[in-house]
Amino acid sequence: MTDALPIDAAALVHEMAVRARAVTTELARAPTAQKAAALIGAARALRADAPAILAANADDVARARAAGLSAALLDRLLLDERRIEGVARALEDVAALPDPVGAVIDAVERPNGLRLARVRVPLGVVGIIYESRPNVTADAGALALMAGNAVILRGGSEARASNRAIHDCLVAGLEAAGLPADAIQLVPVTDRAAVGAMLRAQGLIDVIIPRGGKGLVARVQEEARVPVLAHLDGINHLYIDATADPAKALALAVNAKLRRTGVCGAAETLLIDRAFADPAPILAALADAGCELRGTPEIRTIEPRAIAASDEDWDTEYLEAILAVGFVDGVDGATAHIAAHGSHHTDAIVTEDEAIAEHFLAAVDSAIVMWNASTQFADGGEFGLGAEIGISTGRLHARGPVALEGLTTYKWLVRGTGQIRP
Amino acid sequence: MTDALPIDAAALVHEMAVRARAVTTELARAPTAQKAAALIGAARALRADAPAILAANADDVARARAAGLSAALLDRLLLDERRIEGVARALEDVAALPDPVGAVIDAVERPNGLRLARVRVPLGVVGIIYESRPNVTADAGALALMAGNAVILRGGSEARASNRAIHDCLVAGLEAAGLPADAIQLVPVTDRAAVGAMLRAQGLIDVIIPRGGKGLVARVQEEARVPVLAHLDGINHLYIDATADPAKALALAVNAKLRRTGVCGAAETLLIDRAFADPAPILAALADAGCELRGTPEIRTIEPRAIAASDEDWDTEYLEAILAVGFVDGVDGATAHIAAHGSHHTDAIVTEDEAIAEHFLAAVDSAIVMWNASTQFADGGEFGLGAEIGISTGRLHARGPVALEGLTTYKWLVRGTGQIRP
Repeated sequence: MTDALPIDAAALVHEMAVRARAVTTELARAPTAQKAAALIGAARALRADAPAILAANADDVARARAAGLSAALLDRLLLDERRIEGVARALEDVAALPDPVGAVIDAVERPNGLRLARVRVPLGVVGIIYESRPNVTADAGALALMAGNAVILRGGSEARASNRAIHDCLVAGLEAAGLPADAIQLVPVTDRAAVGAMLRAQGLIDVIIPRGGKGLVARVQEEARVPVLAHLDGINHLYIDATADPAKALALAVNAKLRRTGVCGAAETLLIDRAFADPAPILAALADAGCELRGTPEIRTIEPRAIAASDEDWDTEYLEAILAVGFVDGVDGATAHIAAHGSHHTDAIVTEDEAIAEHFLAAVDSAIVMWNASTQFADGGEFGLGAEIGISTGRLHARGPVALEGLTTYKWLVRGTGQIRP
Repeated sequence: MTDALPIDAAALVHEMAVRARAVTTELARAPTAQKAAALIGAARALRADAPAILAANADDVARARAAGLSAALLDRLLLDERRIEGVARALEDVAALPDPVGAVIDAVERPNGLRLARVRVPLGVVGIIYESRPNVTADAGALALMAGNAVILRGGSEARASNRAIHDCLVAGLEAAGLPADAIQLVPVTDRAAVGAMLRAQGLIDVIIPRGGKGLVARVQEEARVPVLAHLDGINHLYIDATADPAKALALAVNAKLRRTGVCGAAETLLIDRAFADPAPILAALADAGCELRGTPEIRTIEPRAIAASDEDWDTEYLEAILAVGFVDGVDGATAHIAAHGSHHTDAIVTEDEAIAEHFLAAVDSAIVMWNASTQFADGGEFGLGAEIGISTGRLHARGPVALEGLTTYKWLVRGTGQIRP
């Protein structure tokens, strides 16, 4: 184990990035079938090496337990046979996605005879910084590779043995398919200096994608000199207009908040039109389902189980069975609240009035805006994009679910017959 | 003049950005005709105010001359009747461009009945930091507005009186069209603290676009916490393959280097296949046209007017009538040289062999790659995009010419009938 040696993390990351850059041309030109073969081979290796991966994971879990990690974090870290099979299947799913590289975005012939085409090409070298879930090693590595990129993965220290074991399988897949092992590299040290070196690898790493909690994303955004594709909080709103169908509103509120509370598409705030006829059954259904409601005094008179909301509640991403609830005055009240407190992730309206719905869709400045649909649909798979690397709340490059296409860029090809510019 | 007062530039910029953000919703929903009317009104004001603009410009030029600015910089700063008419016409041209806002990029209905659409929306608040050319005030302000953005312009101190006079005309156009004056703001102070405040206005400014020399772009990339859309050097190559038509090769070499030497699409290095039959007429034509050639010893034996190239010449953007010239071994030699020394801007091959051309187009990792065309075509107007804000050599968001579309992002609209996620 090299962990015991004094390693210069910055020099190590620099050297990894140089090796990644050296294989970008080969990866950009790798046929779809070869990239897919590498992922299918990696899935095969994952299944064959499951005992070794589970043993490595047991070490991580024991260490995490000794360090007093919360039950939620331990659950994110834990692998079992079923989860390993899920990771293997996810690799096979990515292998089956359409290859974005080489696709012609648009093409035109100019009056002077120059033929222009915009063609998709890989981003180049992608750096992914993530926290405890070891499946990200496989998921993110696979997506980056399928889009023709070299990738440098830097996982959390809690999962380091699990990540290494999974990474070994990815490398086995690459080598079996005749692709360079440097296409998917895992930073072998987990100290913070490695992250800092990645964030400052201008000219070597083309984009950094942080996947993790607020602290990680904030550090990345502050320190990065390499462009960042980040998602921040999902403070998502569900707004029930006076014109909503009450049954739909109830079902959507319960689903948007409670289907899974830990995902970034979960609703965190319920806004109800003051003119909506009967909010009580919706609030009762949420409370009955075990949701803690934090409401304004008006809300608490309707649903006595609600506790008082503080100012902070309107700006909080709970990721738990907690929901802030308040009244607003119509759709303009809702859009004003969302503009003041939203995080530009996913916001939804419930209404049977198309004009009101379209007003909301136009006025809300979020990556995803929905009408009569659960915010829990905010997901690349649900959008038909295949697996996603995350949901971007930034405005540049890719917005909303970032899947294979978001991991590419384009170049302009100009084909002429000797044209000179007058 | 407020310049004499102690102004807190950071507080000023912050307050301007807050005002810009406050008008983004109105601008995002402004009809095309209203935005166009503002630009046409601004053009009218420019023509009417030409005497005042010329007087302001004369102040700038006198100050610059006293400060000892070079003739080239003085020429960039100078306005005359003809140039003001050119600026006015450019505003009218932008007003006539198709409005990107609201365009549907793609739409799909999912098996569960959810209807998804990606729709173009403005970026939001755009910050543009530029140097001496006062026409940028009008050009950049117009493009940002037409794409539905609020814009904060920070021009160079040399042009401050000219920029203010032109900005007054833009505001007159906005007000005549019923759009908020805060849509196009000019930072009234030119100290460096204002730039620093713009670069750190996370959450208020959505993207920074630097237009200027290396020093400016490098500072922006180092200090910015706001995403940056930058173009760096254009170290552009023209490669003449052994299979090139000699007459085309000569015409393209002369045009790519000498048509205009100060534009970022100008060629800076000429690579000639060692197997190319007769390079002498091409080198002679360049030297005859007044181009200084900096070549390897082999080149100098063919064209005695060439001087010796140093190692640095292969990595230099001259923006003058100077050209580095060397031999390479075939197309792979050329692509290897470009990979080592290029700046990912624009590179071109001259050949009559389509297979060799396609190999070059695929292998060169630049924003624009050309076959049998002059690198001087690297321009949004020549690409049919209308006016451009610049040419991006970055890989995220927009690559190559950045025109109206590059000043937009998109959002996902999801229209349902009450779908909840299982």
